[in-house]
Amino acid sequence: LKSKLPALGTTIFSQMSALAEQYQAINLSQGFPDFDGPEYLQGRLAYHVAQGANQYAPMTGVVALREAISEKTQACYDYAPDVNAEITVTAGATEALYAAITALVRSGDEVICFDPSYDSYAPAVELSGGVLKRIALQPPEFTINWEQFAALVSERTRLVILNTPHNPTATCWSADDFAALWQAIKERNIFVLSDEVYEHICFSHDGHASVLAHPQLRQRAVAVSSFGKTYHMTGWKVGYCIAPAEISAEIRKVHQYLTFSVNTPAQLALADMLRYAPEHYQQLPHFYQAKRDRFIKALAASRFKILPCQGTYFLLADYSAISDLDDVAFCRWLTQEAGVAAIPLSVFCDQPFAHRLIRLCFAKQDATLDAAAQRLVSL
Amino acid sequence: LKSKLPALGTTIFSQMSALAEQYQAINLSQGFPDFDGPEYLQGRLAYHVAQGANQYAPMTGVVALREAISEKTQACYDYAPDVNAEITVTAGATEALYAAITALVRSGDEVICFDPSYDSYAPAVELSGGVLKRIALQPPEFTINWEQFAALVSERTRLVILNTPHNPTATCWSADDFAALWQAIKERNIFVLSDEVYEHICFSHDGHASVLAHPQLRQRAVAVSSFGKTYHMTGWKVGYCIAPAEISAEIRKVHQYLTFSVNTPAQLALADMLRYAPEHYQQLPHFYQAKRDRFIKALAASRFKILPCQGTYFLLADYSAISDLDDVAFCRWLTQEAGVAAIPLSVFCDQPFAHRLIRLCFAKQDATLDAAAQRLVSL
Ligand SMILES: CSCCC(=O)C(=O)O
Ligand SMILES: CSCCC(=O)C(=O)O
Repeated sequence: LKSKLPALGTTIFSQMSALAEQYQAINLSQGFPDFDGPEYLQGRLAYHVAQGANQYAPMTGVVALREAISEKTQACYDYAPDVNAEITVTAGATEALYAAITALVRSGDEVICFDPSYDSYAPAVELSGGVLKRIALQPPEFTINWEQFAALVSERTRLVILNTPHNPTATCWSADDFAALWQAIKERNIFVLSDEVYEHICFSHDGHASVLAHPQLRQRAVAVSSFGKTYHMTGWKVGYCIAPAEISAEIRKVHQYLTFSVNTPAQLALADMLRYAPEHYQQLPHFYQAKRDRFIKALAASRFKILPCQGTYFLLADYSAISDLDDVAFCRWLTQEAGVAAIPLSVFCDQPFAHRLIRLCFAKQDATLDAAAQRLVSL
Repeated sequence: LKSKLPALGTTIFSQMSALAEQYQAINLSQGFPDFDGPEYLQGRLAYHVAQGANQYAPMTGVVALREAISEKTQACYDYAPDVNAEITVTAGATEALYAAITALVRSGDEVICFDPSYDSYAPAVELSGGVLKRIALQPPEFTINWEQFAALVSERTRLVILNTPHNPTATCWSADDFAALWQAIKERNIFVLSDEVYEHICFSHDGHASVLAHPQLRQRAVAVSSFGKTYHMTGWKVGYCIAPAEISAEIRKVHQYLTFSVNTPAQLALADMLRYAPEHYQQLPHFYQAKRDRFIKALAASRFKILPCQGTYFLLADYSAISDLDDVAFCRWLTQEAGVAAIPLSVFCDQPFAHRLIRLCFAKQDATLDAAAQRLVSL
């Protein structure tokens, strides 16, 4: 049995969560809240189950949810994707990313992404026979050099994968970044996959810049989002993607045979939540900004240097004043000796990444953040 | 945008369910019950949601569910797969099938399947660059000629995909069939993908013959099952696969980036159900046999000729005494004019399939079956 993904081990998130459990550490590694989602949403799930909404959903998603997604998109980005042709509900954002990459990338196609990058992109590109071209961004700003980007674009470039707000760097794209991307690709037949699963956790004054707000780009873009992040229910596994009809048709061909459809009662409950409690996602940036600020303030007394955090529920911490270990070794040490689990940044990079940076998840109760900060300050 | 699956349209199940709705026909096409699953199971879902079990499940599935699956497999097939290394919970059986095919099939590999065959196998093989070799079975018995099979096996054969109880023909493999398969492949490096999603809907006296009961075959087999079929909850989308550790490791590499994990509270509820109410799946054959017998009896007065039904919740009906239309046209006519939606058999075949056969789903309330039979008898 010869592996098709020989270089691949278990994802760092599973590894670190297991280590955290083993050492009873405070788990700030894998990104999930240690508090629960809205009671209203839970109640709606129980309601729809009891109502008997337990059979296959339509392959593209239940109509009420796709309608609610279209309305929300209109409210947020002044653009209402077509309910029937342009919105597809998926088994989490992960499936949307995999299906989009599988639908768009052919053997030999080049795909550009920005390192550090989320760990699911590369295996999906590899399984499609695509060639990943990675642009390595540098801390603390992780700024994209658009000339360097333009130099990488060629006849063979098929897809650009971006992520904003960005996991793990906590940076956000601006409208200017999207304008620069458009300039660099507009003359070519290149698609864009915009991973926006943290769209409602953006702390910038201008709010989240979505690819969907760019009238040209969105005609060749797939925007991916996740309800797990927005509603504190990462275990429900409902996400979606928005793309022009022609692209959506290809994504759906894959989705149809990847999972076919998504948990029906969860979809109906999420539709109710979106429609009857839009204030939840409207207030989410404030909710998480308060956690971010509390955690950063508590860490001020530590020897960690905290990098700017513009979005997501992660922040980066430079530990070079504390240890000479590489980041993987440091994260093990931190879990075992200091009782705090974190994610090393180098695992999101293809090239050697010499910086001493770890990712800490602050989607935690204030008490958890305070306890973790206390341990980190003591180092 | 050049399609990677150019020949593919929307699956027949979505098409026929939509047509059924349009014409308000009784929907015996897409396979799903029109009654609800166990109240106990629903209650357990609400319980686990309220308990806060709403974050990511482990990538391989929640431990309690994998333990319950191992115990059930022991009880049914006298074989207890390893909880940690050999069982993977997936987003429905569809994801298990897709992940297994993607993990095992490399570009140029040959894959043998038996037509009629479920419509998700071929696209998954195609996306992996595999070449499908289809053996066309003939009604009414759909018997496999093992000499024909042996002649198709070559150095390039990588995988055999089978399905028992079989959708759409309602036939079942015997232990002798598995023995013949083993003889045909044992000298070669060939894997087996056994789609057993209807394992608990088998009406034969000897019970369901599983690949897992064959000590040699199971060392290179992936067995796939589905809780949707067993618990009348097709919309929950929880399935699983069992395979030796080495194969499971490769499937998990794909699963990890396809969906990562499956709805947590649904997994916990299913674990409770398996452990505390095993009588449900034990009695399922009787439950569905009664429906099958009732429906066949009611159709005795019709001009349809019903083929033997050994398993699944489908049966085949020959309509040649009623119409000269091909089966696709007949299914449209039946939906629009007679108010009963069915599935044409030819869509499961690659070669022209000249028989006049349709598939009827009897996972319906008795009143639904009686009403449908009344319409069918009038033709
Ligand atoms: C799919 S588990 C990982 C969750 C996550 O997105 C992260 O921790 O970055
Ligand atoms: C995934 S929808 C189809 C359900 C089914 O398995 C069938 O009708 O054959």
